[in-house]
Amino acid sequence: KKRKPLTLDDYVEGILAGNRTILSQAITLLESSLPEHSELAQQIIEKCLPYSGKSVRLGITGVPGVGKSTFIEAIGGQITALGHQLAVLAIDPSSERSKGSILGDKTRMETLCADPKAFIRPSPSSGSLGGVARKTRETIILCEAAGFDVIFIETVGVGQSETAVHSMVDFFLLLMLAGAGDELQGIKRGIMEMADLIAITKADGVNATKAKSAKIEYQSALMLFPATESGWSPKVETCSSLDNAGIMNIWENIESYVALTQENGYFHNRRKDQARYWMIEAINSRLMRNFYNSREVKANLELLEQQVLDDKISSFAAASKLLSIYYNSEKH
Amino acid sequence: KKRKPLTLDDYVEGILAGNRTILSQAITLLESSLPEHSELAQQIIEKCLPYSGKSVRLGITGVPGVGKSTFIEAIGGQITALGHQLAVLAIDPSSERSKGSILGDKTRMETLCADPKAFIRPSPSSGSLGGVARKTRETIILCEAAGFDVIFIETVGVGQSETAVHSMVDFFLLLMLAGAGDELQGIKRGIMEMADLIAITKADGVNATKAKSAKIEYQSALMLFPATESGWSPKVETCSSLDNAGIMNIWENIESYVALTQENGYFHNRRKDQARYWMIEAINSRLMRNFYNSREVKANLELLEQQVLDDKISSFAAASKLLSIYYNSEKH
Repeated sequence: KKRKPLTLDDYVEGILAGNRTILSQAITLLESSLPEHSELAQQIIEKCLPYSGKSVRLGITGVPGVGKSTFIEAIGGQITALGHQLAVLAIDPSSERSKGSILGDKTRMETLCADPKAFIRPSPSSGSLGGVARKTRETIILCEAAGFDVIFIETVGVGQSETAVHSMVDFFLLLMLAGAGDELQGIKRGIMEMADLIAITKADGVNATKAKSAKIEYQSALMLFPATESGWSPKVETCSSLDNAGIMNIWENIESYVALTQENGYFHNRRKDQARYWMIEAINSRLMRNFYNSREVKANLELLEQQVLDDKISSFAAASKLLSIYYNSEKH
Repeated sequence: KKRKPLTLDDYVEGILAGNRTILSQAITLLESSLPEHSELAQQIIEKCLPYSGKSVRLGITGVPGVGKSTFIEAIGGQITALGHQLAVLAIDPSSERSKGSILGDKTRMETLCADPKAFIRPSPSSGSLGGVARKTRETIILCEAAGFDVIFIETVGVGQSETAVHSMVDFFLLLMLAGAGDELQGIKRGIMEMADLIAITKADGVNATKAKSAKIEYQSALMLFPATESGWSPKVETCSSLDNAGIMNIWENIESYVALTQENGYFHNRRKDQARYWMIEAINSRLMRNFYNSREVKANLELLEQQVLDDKISSFAAASKLLSIYYNSEKH
């Protein structure tokens, strides 16, 4: 016999009671592309909103090979041992998946998966970055309503996702390998300046000395960066997930950051700015999507773009032409 | 008797003949807010487009006090002495002017102002950053058609203008003071990673030693940055406009960069990317302007935003509501 579908109240009550199965189902609902699903998901989110917000949201990034999954296992275990409820989400859209998102492969975090205080949810398997980012942000709300008070948003430091993550978290953690060589080629420029803490991983065995000097190098580099708005001076730390060394220290840094920014008001203000940003972002991306998906624009865009590239028409004149075409078509 | 207004052909012929008075008048035309002026300006730009592009476009930024005007005087004099025709433009919109744009005050570059091979044009005195950026980009086209083969776009490293400048130049030059102290507070985070060359200014007298160690510090910091797409490794140099020392070296660096990137194709590809970017940017900003200026949106935006900030509605639900309101109003 077919299971009776859950009602809005079933979902909300289940989430607020911390029921992971219902939480998972609600997330699946908001990831669905069916209109009736996303409508129900929106209602669930609205009902959960008043119970959300009471968490620390952490962004975590690093190139493949940096040891992100073992790091999350290690720090995650310590966080739940302290009594926190931890949710681990990912933001990499499918197109970037192959580049190394770990959460597609839950088996790499076996201990955390079995931890009753942890909840791990892989990235939605399809969709644009904008779409995935929105879903991740909505998933945060549901997880918080379900009682999770530490949220990790994991991403791979090679794409565009970092800016999206940065705009939905309180603290941004960058994992790096010692040895400023080829590994760095993979990190996008600009990501280093987003970091509140750079953790040099695999600081163990023969690597320990290299990690220590990398720490000093990065520390002097960060000192040359302009001051942050948060009042926090970005830190560099070494750690080893293998030896379980330095992991607790990173969590303590995060706690210090939260204490500082809650004290000086930055934490709260940034959350408000982010809420505003996502409203504006959602509006702007829909305005653009409607434009670029319009039949008339599609029929003319390529030709005009080519004329721009051939210096036959200026960028601005081409834009004007396309806009006239679009607004005229809208009127009919 | 009133002067007869110039025709389209008068403008184009004047510009192509390198007539600065007519060039200036054409720029004034494109800066004008009168529709008939901007229409004529657009026609002039279209006619000049085929003659544009043959220049090196340089972005130059630095906080007030870094010595930007004396630096531009010093390097400008050397560039024109080599036989180049130099145009100096600015991009800071009026709202940022007070923070230190030098070009509002031409008198600070007396020698260059008197140089027959140089053309200095202050920033438009009003308008949004987007508007000013567009006008600056169009001014580049006119200057190039008038025979200027080196274009400086000056901005103050404290605002949002740097990204706009970065997206219209071939090379980005950041001026810094020695002493990684308070001076740095003024530079926005992220600007350092845009720089193709950091020039430490005022490396003279008692400052010389400090400048030299600053150079070494910045060099090691830059080495930690991810590689650039251009294949160029960003440089750090010291210079003194007072002693006229190191200035020629900076110009030679720029020449090396141009040679390298013209050889490897990056120069050309980036110009194409920029042309495409400005078309998309012009479209997107107009779509947004029309939305946010609509009467119905204005009537509802503030209330919905407040509800978002109070966690009464999600960012995305608020966005959906505003979009429905907008598109419904468009249909009537």
